[in-house]
Amino acid sequence: MKTVGTLLFPGFELLDVFGPLEMFGALRDDFSLEMVAETAGPIESRQGPKAIADIAISEAKPYDVLLIPGGQGTRSQVANAGLIDWLRRHAEQSGVVATVCTGTALLARTGLLDRRKATTNKAAFRWVMEQGPNVVWQTRARWVVDGKYYTSSGVSAGMDMALALIASLSGPEKAHAVAGYAEYHWNSNPDDDPFAALYDLSPAPSDD
Amino acid sequence: MKTVGTLLFPGFELLDVFGPLEMFGALRDDFSLEMVAETAGPIESRQGPKAIADIAISEAKPYDVLLIPGGQGTRSQVANAGLIDWLRRHAEQSGVVATVCTGTALLARTGLLDRRKATTNKAAFRWVMEQGPNVVWQTRARWVVDGKYYTSSGVSAGMDMALALIASLSGPEKAHAVAGYAEYHWNSNPDDDPFAALYDLSPAPSDD
Repeated sequence: MKTVGTLLFPGFELLDVFGPLEMFGALRDDFSLEMVAETAGPIESRQGPKAIADIAISEAKPYDVLLIPGGQGTRSQVANAGLIDWLRRHAEQSGVVATVCTGTALLARTGLLDRRKATTNKAAFRWVMEQGPNVVWQTRARWVVDGKYYTSSGVSAGMDMALALIASLSGPEKAHAVAGYAEYHWNSNPDDDPFAALYDLSPAPSDD
Repeated sequence: MKTVGTLLFPGFELLDVFGPLEMFGALRDDFSLEMVAETAGPIESRQGPKAIADIAISEAKPYDVLLIPGGQGTRSQVANAGLIDWLRRHAEQSGVVATVCTGTALLARTGLLDRRKATTNKAAFRWVMEQGPNVVWQTRARWVVDGKYYTSSGVSAGMDMALALIASLSGPEKAHAVAGYAEYHWNSNPDDDPFAALYDLSPAPSDD
């Protein structure tokens, strides 16, 4: 049984969290899920609905999979030194670290992605790049794997990355079974990124 | 501004709820979201993570869109006379009623789908059919629209249905913009259902 810990913060993006957790959660014998935030209790998403953090970061043990979502809330959390410091230590100690969308900005801020390949939300790409100038940014990728670091493109790409991670940890047969269970069209080619064109629409750094 | 009310119950399926709400929630000027359950407060999903019901069903006003998710919890909720009675009255008074996956079983129990076309999760199809013997069940459909009732196939199909509903309520341009924002491959043809074959694998009624 592997543990999947998901970081919540005010303004997290709903599908960044619950798309991947739908996939991991379908394999109840393989993965147990825990929600973690600076303080335990209700955390409001960018869209409004609230989810519950089971424990505070100060209580969290390292996870087999640490999942970091994006969302509008990342814009303030990149400047939250306490959270970024916890994330650096916890990511180093965890097995796999996976980010969705602008969650990559939080991980980039720790420095752990320096000189590694990574991707993020296409429409917010330039802002995320500023959070990690030494990251080898990939502007065309549904998701990217570099060592134990999985980073995905925007929102829905988290589900495709999660299935790839399940294929790696539990085998491809189980990943395909989960996609079928969820009646999900798995975009299983990480290099097929029809949304890459949105990058050209993202604001230049000076606009931000 | 239209209201989207989502019914929660113990054992709801995460993506049935948060896939559609990602889409509606992307249009903050068009839709406001409310979570409703028998009692307000934390409700545990089938996968474990908990979401918060903002209000109790006894306090809920009719919605412009009433969203009913599925999940393992529907197996007991079909026998919850109080909830089904509330659902019948509230669905009659609400604008659009949309079900995801086995959420169709709950709506079928109200009788409101009788002599209407509807669909549901393919792998659980036979069980859901038993909940509404007078429904005109569609075994091959990503989602079905009959009057004000939208019913979708399993889990991920809820996102495709939600985008179709957004196209109907806010216009196709906004629906495509939301899919792009979420970097989601919208399966926009309701008749294209590659998961229909799972129907043949669902247990016969006598097995249940």
